[in-house]
Amino acid sequence: MDERLLRRWLADIRGGRRTPGQLIDALARWPTDDLGWARLDTHRALRRGYPEVVLAEGKTADQLERITRRLLRTGSLVLLTRVQPDVAKHLQRSLRFLRYDPASRLAYRAAPKTRPHGLVVVVSGGTSDVPVAEEAAVTLGLLGSRVARLYDVGVAGIHRVLAQWRLLRRAKAIVVVAGMEGALASVVAGLVACPVVAVPTSIGYGASFQGLAPLLAMMNSCVPGVGVVNIDNGFGAACLAHAINRPARTR
Amino acid sequence: MDERLLRRWLADIRGGRRTPGQLIDALARWPTDDLGWARLDTHRALRRGYPEVVLAEGKTADQLERITRRLLRTGSLVLLTRVQPDVAKHLQRSLRFLRYDPASRLAYRAAPKTRPHGLVVVVSGGTSDVPVAEEAAVTLGLLGSRVARLYDVGVAGIHRVLAQWRLLRRAKAIVVVAGMEGALASVVAGLVACPVVAVPTSIGYGASFQGLAPLLAMMNSCVPGVGVVNIDNGFGAACLAHAINRPARTR
Amino acid sequence: MDERLLRRWLADIRGGRRTPGQLIDALARWPTDDLGWARLDTHRALRRGYPEVVLAEGKTADQLERITRRLLRTGSLVLLTRVQPDVAKHLQRSLRFLRYDPASRLAYRAAPKTRPHGLVVVVSGGTSDVPVAEEAAVTLGLLGSRVARLYDVGVAGIHRVLAQWRLLRRAKAIVVVAGMEGALASVVAGLVACPVVAVPTSIGYGASFQGLAPLLAMMNSCVPGVGVVNIDNGFGAACLAHAINRPARTR
Amino acid sequence: MDERLLRRWLADIRGGRRTPGQLIDALARWPTDDLGWARLDTHRALRRGYPEVVLAEGKTADQLERITRRLLRTGSLVLLTRVQPDVAKHLQRSLRFLRYDPASRLAYRAAPKTRPHGLVVVVSGGTSDVPVAEEAAVTLGLLGSRVARLYDVGVAGIHRVLAQWRLLRRAKAIVVVAGMEGALASVVAGLVACPVVAVPTSIGYGASFQGLAPLLAMMNSCVPGVGVVNIDNGFGAACLAHAINRPARTR
Amino acid sequence: MDERLLRRWLADIRGGRRTPGQLIDALARWPTDDLGWARLDTHRALRRGYPEVVLAEGKTADQLERITRRLLRTGSLVLLTRVQPDVAKHLQRSLRFLRYDPASRLAYRAAPKTRPHGLVVVVSGGTSDVPVAEEAAVTLGLLGSRVARLYDVGVAGIHRVLAQWRLLRRAKAIVVVAGMEGALASVVAGLVACPVVAVPTSIGYGASFQGLAPLLAMMNSCVPGVGVVNIDNGFGAACLAHAINRPARTR
Amino acid sequence: MDERLLRRWLADIRGGRRTPGQLIDALARWPTDDLGWARLDTHRALRRGYPEVVLAEGKTADQLERITRRLLRTGSLVLLTRVQPDVAKHLQRSLRFLRYDPASRLAYRAAPKTRPHGLVVVVSGGTSDVPVAEEAAVTLGLLGSRVARLYDVGVAGIHRVLAQWRLLRRAKAIVVVAGMEGALASVVAGLVACPVVAVPTSIGYGASFQGLAPLLAMMNSCVPGVGVVNIDNGFGAACLAHAINRPARTR
Amino acid sequence: MDERLLRRWLADIRGGRRTPGQLIDALARWPTDDLGWARLDTHRALRRGYPEVVLAEGKTADQLERITRRLLRTGSLVLLTRVQPDVAKHLQRSLRFLRYDPASRLAYRAAPKTRPHGLVVVVSGGTSDVPVAEEAAVTLGLLGSRVARLYDVGVAGIHRVLAQWRLLRRAKAIVVVAGMEGALASVVAGLVACPVVAVPTSIGYGASFQGLAPLLAMMNSCVPGVGVVNIDNGFGAACLAHAINRPARTR
Amino acid sequence: MDERLLRRWLADIRGGRRTPGQLIDALARWPTDDLGWARLDTHRALRRGYPEVVLAEGKTADQLERITRRLLRTGSLVLLTRVQPDVAKHLQRSLRFLRYDPASRLAYRAAPKTRPHGLVVVVSGGTSDVPVAEEAAVTLGLLGSRVARLYDVGVAGIHRVLAQWRLLRRAKAIVVVAGMEGALASVVAGLVACPVVAVPTSIGYGASFQGLAPLLAMMNSCVPGVGVVNIDNGFGAACLAHAINRPARTR
Repeated sequence: MDERLLRRWLADIRGGRRTPGQLIDALARWPTDDLGWARLDTHRALRRGYPEVVLAEGKTADQLERITRRLLRTGSLVLLTRVQPDVAKHLQRSLRFLRYDPASRLAYRAAPKTRPHGLVVVVSGGTSDVPVAEEAAVTLGLLGSRVARLYDVGVAGIHRVLAQWRLLRRAKAIVVVAGMEGALASVVAGLVACPVVAVPTSIGYGASFQGLAPLLAMMNSCVPGVGVVNIDNGFGAACLAHAINRPARTR
Repeated sequence: MDERLLRRWLADIRGGRRTPGQLIDALARWPTDDLGWARLDTHRALRRGYPEVVLAEGKTADQLERITRRLLRTGSLVLLTRVQPDVAKHLQRSLRFLRYDPASRLAYRAAPKTRPHGLVVVVSGGTSDVPVAEEAAVTLGLLGSRVARLYDVGVAGIHRVLAQWRLLRRAKAIVVVAGMEGALASVVAGLVACPVVAVPTSIGYGASFQGLAPLLAMMNSCVPGVGVVNIDNGFGAACLAHAINRPARTR
Repeated sequence: MDERLLRRWLADIRGGRRTPGQLIDALARWPTDDLGWARLDTHRALRRGYPEVVLAEGKTADQLERITRRLLRTGSLVLLTRVQPDVAKHLQRSLRFLRYDPASRLAYRAAPKTRPHGLVVVVSGGTSDVPVAEEAAVTLGLLGSRVARLYDVGVAGIHRVLAQWRLLRRAKAIVVVAGMEGALASVVAGLVACPVVAVPTSIGYGASFQGLAPLLAMMNSCVPGVGVVNIDNGFGAACLAHAINRPARTR
Repeated sequence: MDERLLRRWLADIRGGRRTPGQLIDALARWPTDDLGWARLDTHRALRRGYPEVVLAEGKTADQLERITRRLLRTGSLVLLTRVQPDVAKHLQRSLRFLRYDPASRLAYRAAPKTRPHGLVVVVSGGTSDVPVAEEAAVTLGLLGSRVARLYDVGVAGIHRVLAQWRLLRRAKAIVVVAGMEGALASVVAGLVACPVVAVPTSIGYGASFQGLAPLLAMMNSCVPGVGVVNIDNGFGAACLAHAINRPARTR
Repeated sequence: MDERLLRRWLADIRGGRRTPGQLIDALARWPTDDLGWARLDTHRALRRGYPEVVLAEGKTADQLERITRRLLRTGSLVLLTRVQPDVAKHLQRSLRFLRYDPASRLAYRAAPKTRPHGLVVVVSGGTSDVPVAEEAAVTLGLLGSRVARLYDVGVAGIHRVLAQWRLLRRAKAIVVVAGMEGALASVVAGLVACPVVAVPTSIGYGASFQGLAPLLAMMNSCVPGVGVVNIDNGFGAACLAHAINRPARTR
Repeated sequence: MDERLLRRWLADIRGGRRTPGQLIDALARWPTDDLGWARLDTHRALRRGYPEVVLAEGKTADQLERITRRLLRTGSLVLLTRVQPDVAKHLQRSLRFLRYDPASRLAYRAAPKTRPHGLVVVVSGGTSDVPVAEEAAVTLGLLGSRVARLYDVGVAGIHRVLAQWRLLRRAKAIVVVAGMEGALASVVAGLVACPVVAVPTSIGYGASFQGLAPLLAMMNSCVPGVGVVNIDNGFGAACLAHAINRPARTR
Repeated sequence: MDERLLRRWLADIRGGRRTPGQLIDALARWPTDDLGWARLDTHRALRRGYPEVVLAEGKTADQLERITRRLLRTGSLVLLTRVQPDVAKHLQRSLRFLRYDPASRLAYRAAPKTRPHGLVVVVSGGTSDVPVAEEAAVTLGLLGSRVARLYDVGVAGIHRVLAQWRLLRRAKAIVVVAGMEGALASVVAGLVACPVVAVPTSIGYGASFQGLAPLLAMMNSCVPGVGVVNIDNGFGAACLAHAINRPARTR
Repeated sequence: MDERLLRRWLADIRGGRRTPGQLIDALARWPTDDLGWARLDTHRALRRGYPEVVLAEGKTADQLERITRRLLRTGSLVLLTRVQPDVAKHLQRSLRFLRYDPASRLAYRAAPKTRPHGLVVVVSGGTSDVPVAEEAAVTLGLLGSRVARLYDVGVAGIHRVLAQWRLLRRAKAIVVVAGMEGALASVVAGLVACPVVAVPTSIGYGASFQGLAPLLAMMNSCVPGVGVVNIDNGFGAACLAHAINRPARTR
C-alpha cells in the first residue's frame, strides 16, 4: 500500500465511500506479511515511494509464485527482476496478469496508469550493454518516469554522443550503462548539469574482471557528481534515477 | 561565467547598462583559459551549473596560486579541495579574499549570497569520518544547498539514527559518510524515499583495505537506489547531492 | 566414540555389564581409522565434542559410501555436508539409516535423542540465503542445540528485525546469514549481548565478488564481538554457535 | 549505565536509599549523550553488556579528552583503544584516573573490581604478535574474564603448543593471535572443544599483504568452529571471547 | 634424447655397434622438432634431465595425437598431463603404448625401468586433494623417484601426521598437497630437515578464492625453506621434488 | 567509407565518371547509421584508417546478421570477432560473401586486395596460445600487413626463439602472445629495436587468475617500450601493430 | 656504442682516420661492462636503438655515480630516471656534464644533436599528471623525436581536447598520460589513426588504488589499438612512442 | 644444540672426556627456553638442521638483546635477519661477538668453520635486487654452503645470463632473485637441471603492486620445477637452497 492508495482510501472513508473496517482489514497483514520463509516488506511503498521488488535469481519458481501471488493482492506495481524465460512461462501459467519482457528479463503487473513525470535518458555504450540498459529503462517506465533511450554511443566514435547533446540537456537525470573502460559516464557527465547514475556492466575482455574495470573507472570519474551502482544493476540505477526525477511532492 | 551571470550581463546590454564590447572582453578567454601547463575549463559553470574546482593534492603551492588568481577574476565561486594548512597559509598571504576551513580542508571565496534551496542531510557513522563529512557539508553550503548535519550515528547503536527519522524524511537528498562496514548507507536508505549518496571512508581496521570494504558494501546495498562515490570523496558526494537538491530551473 | 559414550561403556565395565575386551575391540581402530586414501579422525568426538563430519564436495559417491559405512559403525552422529540430491539417492540405496534434507543439502544419521540445550537463533537477510541458513539450523539441531529461525529480515526493511528484539535477546548465540552488503550482522549484534556468528553468502550482484563484499563488511563490523566464518559456510557457523551455546559441562 | 548499576539503583530506590529524582537525573542524558560532533551511545552497557569503547585512531587529543571526560561521569569501565603514548600523556595530564598500558596501547579506568569468571587463554604465534595479543588480554581482564597468556608458540616448533594442551583444554574460550600463515588457529582449534576466536595480524613478509594471508587462512580453517575477527583487532577478539566466557546470567 | 641415451649411443658407436650415420639421423630433428604450429623442445631431456611434457588442457585431441606420435619416436618417457578421460580414449585408439591413469589424469609411456632413487613422501591434507597428490606421486614414479603416499592427514586431527614423523624424516624431499588454509605445509616442514615443496589446491569454501588462500598461507610459512608451486600443480611439484631427490650425478 | 574509397569517388566526380548525387546518396547514412538499438560508426574508416569491427560476443545471431548486412553495403573490409562456429554457420546461410576462419574465430569479407606493407611477426609462447595468435595474425593480414608466424617458442626452451633472431630483427612490429608467466614478451623485446605489442592470454594453472599473471608481468617488463593490450585480445594487438607497421602515408 | 657511432668508426678505419686497434680497445668492455655488483649492457644501443638507461630508485648515490661515470665514457646519450633533487646535486658535483630537469626528475647528458624526426604529441589529463608527462616528453626529445605537449585536457571539459584535433591528427604517435578513470586514452584514440600509447598515473582518490583504476580502464579501451605501459611510467611510454615514430631506417 | 654438537658430546661421554651431568645441564632448558614473552625453540637445530633464526622486524632492541644473549649460550650459529643499522649498533655495544653486514642487514655469530659443501649460485636481475640477493648469499655461507654470485643479469640483455651457462650448470641449487616481471627465474630454470628457488622482490613501477607481479609470474613459470618463496625473502630462499645443496648425510 503506497501513499497514493492510502490517501484515496482515507478520502473514501471520510466521504463514506468505504468503512473503516475495510482499511483495517487491508492493514492487517501490515507492515510485514510473513510467509515463514519470507517476510514481505509491505510497508515499503509508503516509506520508500515504491513497493518491494523481487529478485528472482536464487529463488525457486515455486517460491516466486507464492510471493507474487501475495503481492498481487495489493493494488500497487508488482515487479520481479532477473527472471529467466522458463521461469516466466511457469509464473504466467498460474498468474494471468503478469507480463514478461525478455529483453530486460522483467516480469511485472503495472500500477494503474498515471502521467509520467520528467525525463530520464538511458544511455548505453554498446549493443552488448542493451539488456542492462533495458532493465533500467523498463523499470523507469513502470515506476512512472518518462524515458528516452540512446544506445550504442560509446566513446570509440564520440560524435555519436556529442550529436545528442540537446536531448541529454533536457534530462532531469541520466543513466549511463557501459562496460569495457566505462569512459562514457565521464564524457556524458561532463556535458550536462543534471545528476548522472553510472552502471558498470560485465561486458568486456579478460582484464575487465567481470566489470571491475568500469566500476573502478566510474568511481574515479574526474567529473564530480557521478553516482555509481552495482555491476549490471540496471534496476538499482532506475530506482535512483526515478527518485531524482520524480517531483519532491510524490516522494 | 555561469548562467546567472551571463543572463544578467545580457539584460544589462539590452538595457544599455553595458556595452557589447564588455561582454566580448569577458568571453575572450573562453571557453578555456590556457596557462600552458593548465587549461582552465571556464565554460564549466555554464555547462555544469558550477565552476571548475581545483584539487590541491599533487599541485605545488605556486601552481595553486597562479590557477586561483585566474579563477578569482570571474565573479563565481572559487573552490580548492584537499588543501593542507601550510599551503592554505601560503595562498592566503597573496590572495586576500580566500578563506580556509581546516576541518574540511577547503579553501574558497564564496559566490554572492543567495537563498539556499531544499535540504540535504549529511549523516556520518563515526567521529573519525567527520573530515570527509565536513568536506561534503561545507561544499554543499557553498554550492547553495541548505545543509543539516547528523554525525556519529553508526549502526552499533541504531537508536541514534532511528531517533532522527523525521529529519531524514524532510531531506531532498541525503549524503551518508561511513567507514568500517558501511552499513549505515543501507539502513538510512531503507528509511526514506529521497535519493541517498553514499561515501565510503578509509577509516577502519586492517581488512577495510583503505576503504574497499565499505565501498563494496555500499555498492551491494540491498536497498535499491543508493549512488556510491569514491572513497573519502566528500566533495563529489556534495556535487551529486546538490545536483539532486537544486530546483531543475537552476540546473 | 565421544565422551558420553565412553563414560557409559566404562560404567558398564565397572558394573560388569560389558567386558574390557569389548572396549578394547572398539578402540582398536582408534584414534584414526585408515582406509588408505582416507584416514578418519575417530578420536575427534572425544577431543572436540562432536565427530568428524564429511564434506561431500570433491568426493565421489563411491568414496562417500565407503567413508559413511565406516562412520555408521560408531554410535555417534554421522553427518555429510553439501550432498547433491543424486548423490544422496545413491547413498540411501545402500545405507538405509541415512536421512537427507534437500533444503540444507545435509545427509545424516542423528545421534540418540537428548534434550536440546540453550537457544541459538538463526537469522537470514533474504530468501536466497535460506539454503545456507538451513545448513546452519539443521546442523545445530543435530549437534543438540535448540534452534529458532528468523528469515528474510534484511535491513532494507529494518522494522522486520527490530520487531523480533525480544526473541534475539533470549538467545545464547545468534547466527546471522547475509549476502549483498552483509549489514544485518552489525545491526543484530548492536542489539544484543550474546555472541554473534556471521556467515557471508555468495548471493549478490557483480560487485559482491562471490561473497567478498559481505565477508569484508562483517569483518569490519563497527560492533565489536562478531566472529566471521567462511562464505556460505553454514555448517562452520553452526559448530561455533553450538560450542558457545552448550553448557561448559558437555564441551 | 550497565545492568548491574541499574539494578542497584532500583534496589536503592525501593529501599529508600535513593530518590526517584536521582535516577531520573542520571537517565537524562540517556540513551545518547550528544556532543554535536559525537553522539555517545550511553545505552550500550545495558544492551550489550559493556559500555561504548573509544577508538583513539583518527581522533584528535582534544576530541578524546572531551569524550573521555563525559564517559568518566558514568560509574562503568572507560576504555580507549589504539592510544599513542604522547596522546596518553596528554590525556593523563587532565584526567587523573586514567591509566595507560603501553604494550597494548590501551588507556582505561577500570570498573569496580569483581571476581573474574571462567578462563580465556590468549595464544600468540610469535613475539611480534604480542602487542595485538596484549590488547586482547588486557581488555579481557578489564571486562571481567580470567586470562592466561601463552605466547610465541608458532607451528614452526609445534611441540611448544602441544606441551600446553592441558591449559588449553581448561579454557572456556581461546583467542589465537597469529600473523604469517596463521596456521596456529587451526592447530589449536583441532585440539580443543571450546570456541576459538582467531585474530590475523599484519606481521609478515610481502605476500602477507598486511594480514590478508592469515585472514584468508583462518577463514578457511579445516577445523569447523573458528570465528575470525579483523586484522590486528585484539580488542574485538576480546569482546567476542568475553561474551562466550561470561555466565549467561551476566550477559 | 636424454643424457643416458646419448651416452649409450656414443658407446655403441665407439664399440662399432652403431654407425655415426644413425646418430646423425637421430639428431636431425634436434634441438627442436618443428610441426609448424608446435615446436617440440627435443633438447630438453639433455639440458633439464627429463623430456618436454605436454599439458593437454587447451589442445585439441588431434593436436595431442600428432605431438605424442612425434614424441613416441624418442626412446624417453612420454608424458601428458591433465588428460580428460574421453581424450585419453581417443589417444589410446591410435597410440597403443600409451597408458592412462584416471586418478591423476596422466597419460604416458614409461621410460625403460631403472632402480628408483631416494624417497619422496607425498602428503595430502584431505581426500579431495587426492587427484593433485596423485598427479605428483605418479609423475615422481615415472621420473624415477621412490614414492610413499601419506594422505588425509590434515591439521584438524594433527595426531595423524605426528604419528608418521618417522616416515617423514626418512624422506629426501616431501611434497605437501593441501587446500583450505594450507597449514599442513608449515606443520610438516617444522618437523623435518629435508626440503618441502608445497602445492596449494583449489579445494575449499568461498573465501579460498580458488586456492588463493592456501597459496598465500604457504608463501608466508613461518618455517623457512618451503618452496611453493602453482595451485593444483602436482606435476610441477613432482619435477622440483625429483630434481632435489635424484643424485647430483644423474642431474 | 575509408579515405582510399573517398578519394577515388572524388576523382570519379572530377572526371565525370560519377555524379555528385551518387556521393551524396552514399554519404546519406553518414557519419552514423542508426538501427535504433545499434548506431554504426560509419565514419570510423576515414578517421581511424579501418572500419568499425563487430565483437560477436554478447550479441544474438539475429542482431549480428542485421549489423553485418548494413556493413556489407560499404565497399570496405567487414570483420566480426569472437564468432562461435554455429553463429558463423547461421550468418553464412544468408550472407554469402562472408568467410569464416575457425582457428581465429573471425568472420569477414576482405577488402579488395592491395600489396601488403611491412612485416609484422606474431610470436606465441605455446600451442595453447595459438587461437589468440591466429586472431592477431589473420586480422593483420586483412588490414593489409604482411605477417610471419613464429609459434610455440616459450622461454622453457629459449634456443627456439634465439634461433629466429634474424626474422625478428626484420620486423617493423612484433606481437608477442603468451600466457603463464608471460616472460616471452620481455625476452623478445630485449632482442630487437622495433616496437613490441604484448598480449597476455588466460592460459595457465590456478595462480594465473585468468591471465592476470602475464598481464602484470608484461606491464612490468624490464625492457622499456612494450605496449600491453587486454587479455586474449589478439584483435586489439593486430590493430596496434598494423598502425605501427603501415606507412604514415596510409594512416 | 650505437649503430651510428659504429658505422662512423668503421668508415674512419676504412678511410685510415682511425686504426683497427682503436676500435678493438673500444669494444674490449663489450657487450657487457662488469662492475661486480652491476653488469652494464653496453651492447644495448646497437641492439635496441638506444643505450641502457639507469633507474635511480633503489640505488645509492654512490652506485649511481660509479655507473654513470662508466656510461659517460661512451659517446652516446646517458640517461638516469627518477632522480631525486638531492641525488642529482650529489651527482652533478663530480660529473660535470650531467644536466638535471626537476620537473621530469631526469638526469642526462644528451647525445650529439641531430634533426628530430616525426612528431609525438604528449597529452595529459590534469595538472597533477604533468611530472609523468614531462618524463615522457623530455625522454622523447633526448631520444631524437620532435615533441608537442597538450596538457590538462581531461574529459571533464571535452571541448579542450576536441579543439586540438588538428594537432593530434598530425602526430606519428601519441602518448596519453591520465590518472583517475583514464578515459582520455579512449577518447583520443577514437579521434586518430596513429598508434596511441597510454600511461596510467597513480593520481586519484582512494578507489584508484594507486593507478589500478586507469590501468584497467586503458587496458579495456573500446578503441582497439591502444598499447598500455606501467603506472606512472612516462619513460617506458617514450621508448615505445619513439620506436614507433623514428624512421624504420634508424631502428 | 644441533646433531653435530650432540654427537660430539655423546662421543666425549663415551670416551670419558665429559660427564653425563654436563650433558644433562645443557639439555635442561630444552626443547624450549621460555622467557615468558618468548619461547625459544632450542630443539630446532636437531630437528631441522639449523637453529631458530630471529626476525628483527617488529621486535624492540631490548627484546632482541635478551633473545640473542640466550642464543649465544649455545655453541651454534646465531642469526638475526632484517636488522636496521641503529639496532645493530645497539646490539653490538653489549654483545661483542655479534657481527653485522649492512648490505644484507644480517647480524650473526658464525658457527665454527667447516668446509662448505656443494655450490649454490645466487642470481639477481638488477642492482636494486642486491640487498635481497645478499641476504640469501650471506645466509647460505653461514649455513655452510659454497656460494657464487651472479648479479645484474636481467632478461633485458639476455646475453649476460647466457654467457654464464657453464657456471649455472655446475650448481647444485640456484637462487634467482628478481623484481619487475620476474622472467629471469623461468629463463634460468630452462637452462639447467638442478632445482631453482625463485625470490620475487618488491622492486618495480606501480603495477608491480609491491612484488605481486613477479610472485605471480614465478608461480606460473612455464618451466616446471621452480619453487617460489615470499616477496623479498632472501633468507627463506637460502634455507631451501641449503637444504637442497647439503649432503643428505648432514640433513
